Amino acid sequence: MTRYRIVVVTGNVNKKREIELILSDFGESFEVLTEPSLRKLEIQADQVEDIARAAIENIARVVKPRSSTYIVVEDDGLYIEALGGFPGPYSEYVYRTIGLRGVLKLLEDVDNRRAVFKSALGVYTPSGKIEVVCGEVSGYIARELRGSGGFGYDPIFVPDGYDVTFAEMSLEEKCRVSHRARAFRELGKLILSGSLA
Amino acid sequence: MTRYRIVVVTGNVNKKREIELILSDFGESFEVLTEPSLRKLEIQADQVEDIARAAIENIARVVKPRSSTYIVVEDDGLYIEALGGFPGPYSEYVYRTIGLRGVLKLLEDVDNRRAVFKSALGVYTPSGKIEVVCGEVSGYIARELRGSGGFGYDPIFVPDGYDVTFAEMSLEEKCRVSHRARAFRELGKLILSGSLA
Repeated sequence: MTRYRIVVVTGNVNKKREIELILSDFGESFEVLTEPSLRKLEIQADQVEDIARAAIENIARVVKPRSSTYIVVEDDGLYIEALGGFPGPYSEYVYRTIGLRGVLKLLEDVDNRRAVFKSALGVYTPSGKIEVVCGEVSGYIARELRGSGGFGYDPIFVPDGYDVTFAEMSLEEKCRVSHRARAFRELGKLILSGSLA
Repeated sequence: MTRYRIVVVTGNVNKKREIELILSDFGESFEVLTEPSLRKLEIQADQVEDIARAAIENIARVVKPRSSTYIVVEDDGLYIEALGGFPGPYSEYVYRTIGLRGVLKLLEDVDNRRAVFKSALGVYTPSGKIEVVCGEVSGYIARELRGSGGFGYDPIFVPDGYDVTFAEMSLEEKCRVSHRARAFRELGKLILSGSLA
């Protein structure tokens, strides 16, 4: 059995832990490595798909394909319906500046709390092809911060079918339904089926 | 007397009008043209200087230097102190999603309304050099939208030394003090002094 290397361009240990857990569903098929030193060029664009594609294209210019090795950049964002898609692709900067309390303030007295968490993976395959694989989960924004697990927007996002936030779930529970889990599981399936060579 | 061409990579007619007015201070020295078809690649970065530099570097890869011609990309952003620099480099997306009313909501009951409007020009010179020229103006965020002139954040930004917003000023007044005016006037001086050949 081939064991594939998934090299994720990130310095975020929380993401790494989640990806390892998600891909462990496939037994020993995948080894997850992180590569924080490759430059992840993030462009400004409304859709995380476009940002992930540009980032992996940029990496493909400086890296050679390697047998059984997939290089992956993830871009994700929380798109809140009543806020026109805010904070979307700029979720990280918004988190660092106005924070979760700022986002909740924008939704004070707003009944429509629908939101979609999106993850897009830019993938550079062993044969040197570029692909984008996406995952998303719909849900709603809680009225207040709840839970201490996870990271980022997890304390305010409740996925459909649950009444707890991502931050109130165990890592295992979150990784059953999260946008990131859906994207990486799709990636795993595509690789194992041979359609992402 | 040499007449210089300033080719601004933008499709924004409001910006073009302002830049023409600002550079008309230098008599007939500058002709302002816009070039909306060159691709302005905007990266994600906290500082408008870094975004402008990357954008002009990208253009320099596909365009040849031309005698007496300066290619300019502008990136600007409104940095609100009490919001940790929000919306900063992502002012345009924030404007399109939560809008000025969203920004005012975030500042409800906030006494510190200090803000800085920043403009950074990425410049590609006739000899093929890359430079970044900046301008900024300090001020504060108004309690409500005021005025119908200008565009973008103009209805909520009051520059220091005034008690009216940019949107309440005539174009001539705004172009005496704005971040954009300061950046383009500096550019004009540098070109005419020969230090940006």
